Amino acid sequence: MDAIRYELKHICKQTGARYGILHTPHGDVETPIFMPVGTLATVKGLSPEELKEMHAGIILSNTYHLWLRPGEDVVEQAGGLHQFMNYDGPILTDSGGFQVFSLGKTRKIKEEGVYFKSIIDGKALFLSPEKAIDIQNKLGSDIIMSLDECAPYPCTYDYMKKSVERTLRWAKRGQEAHQNWEKQSLFGIVQGGEFTDLREQCAKALVEMNFPGYSIGGTSVGEPKEVMYKMVEDAIRYLPEDKPRYLMGVGNPIDLIEGAIRGIDMFDCVLPTRVARHGAMMTSTGRININNEKYKYDFTPLDPNCDCYTCRHYTKAYLRHLHKSEEIFGKRLLSIHNVRFLLKLSENIRQAIQEDRLADFKEEFLNQYGHDVYERAF
Amino acid sequence: MDAIRYELKHICKQTGARYGILHTPHGDVETPIFMPVGTLATVKGLSPEELKEMHAGIILSNTYHLWLRPGEDVVEQAGGLHQFMNYDGPILTDSGGFQVFSLGKTRKIKEEGVYFKSIIDGKALFLSPEKAIDIQNKLGSDIIMSLDECAPYPCTYDYMKKSVERTLRWAKRGQEAHQNWEKQSLFGIVQGGEFTDLREQCAKALVEMNFPGYSIGGTSVGEPKEVMYKMVEDAIRYLPEDKPRYLMGVGNPIDLIEGAIRGIDMFDCVLPTRVARHGAMMTSTGRININNEKYKYDFTPLDPNCDCYTCRHYTKAYLRHLHKSEEIFGKRLLSIHNVRFLLKLSENIRQAIQEDRLADFKEEFLNQYGHDVYERAF
Repeated sequence: MDAIRYELKHICKQTGARYGILHTPHGDVETPIFMPVGTLATVKGLSPEELKEMHAGIILSNTYHLWLRPGEDVVEQAGGLHQFMNYDGPILTDSGGFQVFSLGKTRKIKEEGVYFKSIIDGKALFLSPEKAIDIQNKLGSDIIMSLDECAPYPCTYDYMKKSVERTLRWAKRGQEAHQNWEKQSLFGIVQGGEFTDLREQCAKALVEMNFPGYSIGGTSVGEPKEVMYKMVEDAIRYLPEDKPRYLMGVGNPIDLIEGAIRGIDMFDCVLPTRVARHGAMMTSTGRININNEKYKYDFTPLDPNCDCYTCRHYTKAYLRHLHKSEEIFGKRLLSIHNVRFLLKLSENIRQAIQEDRLADFKEEFLNQYGHDVYERAF
Repeated sequence: MDAIRYELKHICKQTGARYGILHTPHGDVETPIFMPVGTLATVKGLSPEELKEMHAGIILSNTYHLWLRPGEDVVEQAGGLHQFMNYDGPILTDSGGFQVFSLGKTRKIKEEGVYFKSIIDGKALFLSPEKAIDIQNKLGSDIIMSLDECAPYPCTYDYMKKSVERTLRWAKRGQEAHQNWEKQSLFGIVQGGEFTDLREQCAKALVEMNFPGYSIGGTSVGEPKEVMYKMVEDAIRYLPEDKPRYLMGVGNPIDLIEGAIRGIDMFDCVLPTRVARHGAMMTSTGRININNEKYKYDFTPLDPNCDCYTCRHYTKAYLRHLHKSEEIFGKRLLSIHNVRFLLKLSENIRQAIQEDRLADFKEEFLNQYGHDVYERAF
């Protein structure tokens, strides 16, 4: 039996968006959901208790980073990632592919896998579909990913076609290498770039292989938003209703809404913590930068509509002071808010789906947050 | 009536150390106590809730730093330091003198006060005894300090004599400038360096002025430990039994014990958080560095005898991983442990005093921690 199971509970009559429950070995998660990213077995600055307090349902960790540091053997001997980092909720890991392909010219793609050099010590490394599975088996995450090639955007049709075919062969090899199906569910990743027929080819072939869940990759690599939304549509129409769909690397607030409308269940992005560490904050009335001089004497919370620890206890004046002083506690408080913002947005999306009014919710959100969210990073 | 009141509860028959209770407008504190330092209105990396969980009784904040950033007016308009930083326990502030005198040649001492340049923007600044009180009045801390000169070590007898006399004139001016005695208690600071008669002169003159508490300054400025202990003895014999005594800037574990034996009630130091951020950890069996390769696969807590959040939930292997990866959460977990270590040590000291066995406790501590603690920073 598969480790995870997706239970479709309701389809929004206004949009077709799905509300469901993802059952995992480490608990149930309502979807659509934003997954905070804990690259190195820690969501930067936050404790597991803080993640629970803000109702994080499932978090993501990065195979590539953990492979290099501290090494998957350390995590395995610790009893797996949950025990190592003291997080008893569900964890998803990626395959490491995205990071390796981001290395650009320093890596060489062959049929057997990818050759590259460690960013830490320059050591020669090799990542194959089997190795990606082996590492993730040792990490013990609830949901794991096939090694895929995340091709650049834009790229030629011919390159993408060859890439998709290799990604499919790698998915097969990963599937054969994976053990522990009852403890860890392996997702196949739909690639194909902006090419409708390649997305179709990839999605159909993966569905044929019958994975317990499907990711949509090759997004958030520099393409315009309308292209990304089309990539989602081109892939998702071939994916089965009874399996979860995960849109990789996407965390712009409006993309959570647009993704959900197109049938996505899971999202992840480093955005909320990364920009928070630079003082860029998501609020219900749009983006603000806490560095702004006008907050020097502002004794109101970051976002009066937010229920996070930061907004309940601290003022903009204090947060600005901490941020300007480069205090660790400032990075922590700002990260808490931004992560909670996307989790709360996920909650609102789920509620709107259940009430068959996600299109209305989207308009309300845009009127508050600003329609220019389509033109900026968040 | 004074804002604070010291209640002497027990004197250790073995050593003469004092167990007492310091009553403050923001709650009672058992003494002897170590006060964690929250320089910029935050104990680096820690939340107020974490400070409470580790039983921090009173914390310290730095007038000099808050004056420069965010400015005392911001803190005042926030409703004072407690409200600004969301800490409802007692807070002590220093006078800013130590930091200004640390600036070395760039500052000029005159009878009226000290002229210096801001480390942030180079702006010309002036700190007088009245200004130090005014800033602290605005900060609203429970215990505030007179502006003193923290003379270098070593220095000539003549220089120190003139310095002590000026410090006494400044103490008088500060006392006259201070309002709010019922909300904030102003301490006088005993200076005099290593010169027994100057310590006597300074202590007696301050006691004559009848402060609600006394600090011993000019310690932890590079002098050998035996000199520091003698400075404490030279000052403390003239201080009244019914007032608290605070040894400034001291936080080496053995100095807490040696200080308590000599009659000190309060200590502060940035040591535990500063060294933790570099991975240097205090444990019941001595100092360790979490970076050490031998902890790579060590799945035991930092200190099996510690009850802190970090030791209850995380292993050395995980802490080493976070520290080597320069993760914020690592700095936080390591800081929690070191601060709790000194708070727990304070608790043990208080218990040993009440049981009339502080000398025995000191031996037990040294046998565990290592007698070389006298020769190193901690």
